[in-house]
Amino acid sequence: MIIVLKANTTKEEKKRIIDKVHSLGLKTMVSEGVERSIIGVIGEEDKIRLQPLEAFPGVEQVIPVLSPFKLVSREFKPENSNIKIKDVTIGGETIVIMGGPCAIENLETLREIAYNVKKAGATVLRGGAFKPRTSPYSFQGLGVEGLKIMKQVCDEVGLLSISEVIDPRDVELMADYVDIMQVGARNMQNFNLLKEIGKAKRPVLLKRGMMATIKEFLMSAEYILNEGNFNVILCERGIRTFETYTRNTLDINAVPAIKILSHLPIIVDPSHATGKWDLVTPVSKAAIAAGADGLLVEVHVHPEEAVSDGTQSLNTENFEAMVKEVRAVAVAVQRKI
Amino acid sequence: MIIVLKANTTKEEKKRIIDKVHSLGLKTMVSEGVERSIIGVIGEEDKIRLQPLEAFPGVEQVIPVLSPFKLVSREFKPENSNIKIKDVTIGGETIVIMGGPCAIENLETLREIAYNVKKAGATVLRGGAFKPRTSPYSFQGLGVEGLKIMKQVCDEVGLLSISEVIDPRDVELMADYVDIMQVGARNMQNFNLLKEIGKAKRPVLLKRGMMATIKEFLMSAEYILNEGNFNVILCERGIRTFETYTRNTLDINAVPAIKILSHLPIIVDPSHATGKWDLVTPVSKAAIAAGADGLLVEVHVHPEEAVSDGTQSLNTENFEAMVKEVRAVAVAVQRKI
Amino acid sequence: MIIVLKANTTKEEKKRIIDKVHSLGLKTMVSEGVERSIIGVIGEEDKIRLQPLEAFPGVEQVIPVLSPFKLVSREFKPENSNIKIKDVTIGGETIVIMGGPCAIENLETLREIAYNVKKAGATVLRGGAFKPRTSPYSFQGLGVEGLKIMKQVCDEVGLLSISEVIDPRDVELMADYVDIMQVGARNMQNFNLLKEIGKAKRPVLLKRGMMATIKEFLMSAEYILNEGNFNVILCERGIRTFETYTRNTLDINAVPAIKILSHLPIIVDPSHATGKWDLVTPVSKAAIAAGADGLLVEVHVHPEEAVSDGTQSLNTENFEAMVKEVRAVAVAVQRKI
Amino acid sequence: MIIVLKANTTKEEKKRIIDKVHSLGLKTMVSEGVERSIIGVIGEEDKIRLQPLEAFPGVEQVIPVLSPFKLVSREFKPENSNIKIKDVTIGGETIVIMGGPCAIENLETLREIAYNVKKAGATVLRGGAFKPRTSPYSFQGLGVEGLKIMKQVCDEVGLLSISEVIDPRDVELMADYVDIMQVGARNMQNFNLLKEIGKAKRPVLLKRGMMATIKEFLMSAEYILNEGNFNVILCERGIRTFETYTRNTLDINAVPAIKILSHLPIIVDPSHATGKWDLVTPVSKAAIAAGADGLLVEVHVHPEEAVSDGTQSLNTENFEAMVKEVRAVAVAVQRKI
Repeated sequence: MIIVLKANTTKEEKKRIIDKVHSLGLKTMVSEGVERSIIGVIGEEDKIRLQPLEAFPGVEQVIPVLSPFKLVSREFKPENSNIKIKDVTIGGETIVIMGGPCAIENLETLREIAYNVKKAGATVLRGGAFKPRTSPYSFQGLGVEGLKIMKQVCDEVGLLSISEVIDPRDVELMADYVDIMQVGARNMQNFNLLKEIGKAKRPVLLKRGMMATIKEFLMSAEYILNEGNFNVILCERGIRTFETYTRNTLDINAVPAIKILSHLPIIVDPSHATGKWDLVTPVSKAAIAAGADGLLVEVHVHPEEAVSDGTQSLNTENFEAMVKEVRAVAVAVQRKI
Repeated sequence: MIIVLKANTTKEEKKRIIDKVHSLGLKTMVSEGVERSIIGVIGEEDKIRLQPLEAFPGVEQVIPVLSPFKLVSREFKPENSNIKIKDVTIGGETIVIMGGPCAIENLETLREIAYNVKKAGATVLRGGAFKPRTSPYSFQGLGVEGLKIMKQVCDEVGLLSISEVIDPRDVELMADYVDIMQVGARNMQNFNLLKEIGKAKRPVLLKRGMMATIKEFLMSAEYILNEGNFNVILCERGIRTFETYTRNTLDINAVPAIKILSHLPIIVDPSHATGKWDLVTPVSKAAIAAGADGLLVEVHVHPEEAVSDGTQSLNTENFEAMVKEVRAVAVAVQRKI
Repeated sequence: MIIVLKANTTKEEKKRIIDKVHSLGLKTMVSEGVERSIIGVIGEEDKIRLQPLEAFPGVEQVIPVLSPFKLVSREFKPENSNIKIKDVTIGGETIVIMGGPCAIENLETLREIAYNVKKAGATVLRGGAFKPRTSPYSFQGLGVEGLKIMKQVCDEVGLLSISEVIDPRDVELMADYVDIMQVGARNMQNFNLLKEIGKAKRPVLLKRGMMATIKEFLMSAEYILNEGNFNVILCERGIRTFETYTRNTLDINAVPAIKILSHLPIIVDPSHATGKWDLVTPVSKAAIAAGADGLLVEVHVHPEEAVSDGTQSLNTENFEAMVKEVRAVAVAVQRKI
Repeated sequence: MIIVLKANTTKEEKKRIIDKVHSLGLKTMVSEGVERSIIGVIGEEDKIRLQPLEAFPGVEQVIPVLSPFKLVSREFKPENSNIKIKDVTIGGETIVIMGGPCAIENLETLREIAYNVKKAGATVLRGGAFKPRTSPYSFQGLGVEGLKIMKQVCDEVGLLSISEVIDPRDVELMADYVDIMQVGARNMQNFNLLKEIGKAKRPVLLKRGMMATIKEFLMSAEYILNEGNFNVILCERGIRTFETYTRNTLDINAVPAIKILSHLPIIVDPSHATGKWDLVTPVSKAAIAAGADGLLVEVHVHPEEAVSDGTQSLNTENFEAMVKEVRAVAVAVQRKI
């Protein structure tokens, strides 16, 4: 940690800051520059990170040097983490395709979608039973009834299941019905939910918040790993920017950046990242080209009748064509589907 | 609702869309323009808002015309809502000042802060017992122990209390200890938490999410009102932008904008909105000049020793001076403290 | 254009608005809704677009229906535009690779870079002679001397040249030395510069401003086409967001979006879009997978000695490896290098 | 400057970096931390700021310690700068009010507006003759004819004039007609324009770019001061964010932040910062309460007939009422109008 002092800091102020650092068991190294002094802090940065050193008179700026995350970092674990769930491995050579409707609507529709996404190449069925909706007047999901439908369809068709959990009280329940619990963008910093999921030790897909930096995203994953659950799949799903033509802006830079910073697998949700079905295929190809380990795609047999997010859903024909195009790109980057 | 068709939409496509609208019990009015056709939808927009009309072939754009919120809107209730809690009224002529530490640390410190903020003009003591922190390694708050300290101090000193709730399981508990429950920025779209608070019928301060639009902010308030709880105080606390000099960017436009759109009172948190204690006083004056109904300010007896957010906390002398300066501005806009 | 009226608009106010529209030679169609009235404007939207209709009492919102750009639009010209410069075609089957240093430093260095980028597969050499720099104390480029070096090297090595123009007074001069004039992100809305370039009828690469929407970007291209110059290559180079890990956020969505909206070719600058050389290769592959027509990459023989932007420059070995990887992706999407 | 090395940096890599720093005439101080080494650079940071040290193998991060601007900084000149133009002083006790139309339309309209804004309390008349417009099909201003009208009206009514310059070729011309040259948000980084204005030594109002950080804003001012022109007035006019309810987001934090960082006066443009006339008065009061030295407001006799920006213009009655309300706030913060 580096403490930059103001040009006019007094000796007493400087001494007070140095004494504070020493009182925490750390050493200092003072550099008297031409224009101002700098105090280097030597030792375990964690001990001092939470101190409001900027509140001390004479301090201009405090610059942390080390990353705040540990367990999720590539330094902690240099090799890639592969998450194995039944016969599916996420993070390995094979790209994982997750497809399905935004919300589970009924048994027949989900079953029809499931057969189609499996045929196209998907190994995981997505579908929401508890839906976080901006408006209280929007469809909030079928709840437990939806989870039961999901389980029945996945057992029948032979797919893994993924569904969103939005309440710490539901974590145990979810574990009975789905293979992968999803934490949505709005809950990326719902820390009690993260802790419960960490304790549940079940595979989890953590979506990046629309307002979260890459480092905050990794810190949220750290909450889950810190409880002993290393089965975490990260998901970039677009961030909020000033651009309004698309629903969100896919942060494609984040894919290789996270591969550098962390050992965890990362997949991309092209549906929320664009909000427009006709952009889903090209950005899916981009995601795989950039190094993503999989895709989470909204698919519906009749997007125009979907109760939620129809605008960004692929129909089953387009989904099949998309997987085909993505497969060619996967091969070009030494992966497969 | 307006449905704009593409230039090359076929008759069949157009008919299919119109039939869909009619099937929902709404009427249409088609305008054949020079370059493309537009379908105006007449009737209750709510019936059709959730339909993914953009997924229909031939549709270029769907433009909602009405605001999606009802109960929070100025149209629903033209006069200002005043929230009365014991002898304090929020939203009336008197500006409410809420001051206190980021986190409750111990009885003695909180008591000393409480006496000081009361002397300076505050009527509400703030202090967190459950802290949502970016890092799992940061101080997470004293929990229930903190709430007990808060209650004891407020009873003794004669202040209302406000503290953050982060888990739907804690709502009932909080109601026993604090006068106003705070929903933090990270939980603005934790909809199950909003619903629980709505059912609790207790006063709540709802903070705007750091990347929530004004309309999304009001929709979250709508969740609470929709459960029958109209005791909602809104709080603008800065949004996330590209600017890094400050922690957040105070959206001062939002204060008069919300006064136009809604009947609910709105206060400003200048501490989080700036992240720098030396900006707190000028932006507090700005907030009141723009029409805010109050301020929520971080205050500590020794900011440099605070366990959280010391960098943006005022010490008690600066807080007292701040209230004095704000009072002069309040008077200039026909308010008082 | 749709004019939405307020709930309480009077008959006189409504009449005044309708009269205004009629006075401009347009027709109206009024829809009396349950909650408010809507006026549809029929006719050439251009005639009314610039009227401040929202300033009329009683108007709540004015919603334009048509895109404001014409000549750049896919509707105006359904097939892709190919820009032919000497023996290079941009926008066709072949992906164009532009490589070179941020700034032209001296003859020897540029020559060495040029031979290397050509060997790797580039057909265009980039290099700045006039540098727009945030600080007046930063290196501002070699000016005309740099252009002469550029011309000499390109003639010798057999590459096209691209260099940035930052002043309308320099357009004529630039045309003598370079094949493609570049308009940088900071000048995307330097409209007089755009007009001069439009008149010059020379090939131009227009970079998206770091905070320009896709539509504003296309409107700036429209300025050039409107002067009769259709030789415009668009370039996505990252937008500014809240994320600070990377220098900018590559808006990968914009690539297919622009392909839908416009007939102009679009290339990607992965160097500025990331600001980190170790992210350049993966996002370059993503750009081509998403449908981009080329890449503009910073390359230097000794990035750590570059006078500008060394942090984001590839060295020549990495550039060669990058082109190789990109070529495999290009083939996977039916393109070639 | 602080150079943070990677955990696994070799001795040779470290030596190479240190040698580089020494070769520039600077000293180093190496701190061997528990997890990684840090190199402190001692001496004039300017000598090394432009070196791409991050391109050296082994470097993780380079952290500049000093501000990059000099002449504009409060450290360079501790007391406030007052800009005196004829009998008006900007930056002193008196708040300066600048009012007028977006664009100069004709003599009669401008004259009528001028008389009204003067009566209300303004001392400077604003009005654009050269208009930077997003669309080439929008009204581009009257050009020199407009400047002549501006000069005639200001002479007649007794007001200073301000008008925007968008082309370095026009700087000399503008100086003949207007008292204050305005550099608009889109040209904040049109560095050749800034240099020409610097050389002209005439008063200039520099608007913050919609995508510019506070530091970049001050760096652009530095370009003008660096040419010997200290008559610079800064203007905060709103930044671009994700919020769409308002045209821009007024960064009210920037007002006191700039007062801390710089000695230059700063005024606020509430019209562009909100884009809605009914928000102009409250945010104008906020700006003055936060410490702004003046306001730049769009005023028109008939906003609904204005050729540009009518939606955000006050009519003359509302402008007069606004100045009255602002005056009360000014007095509350020991200023006057």
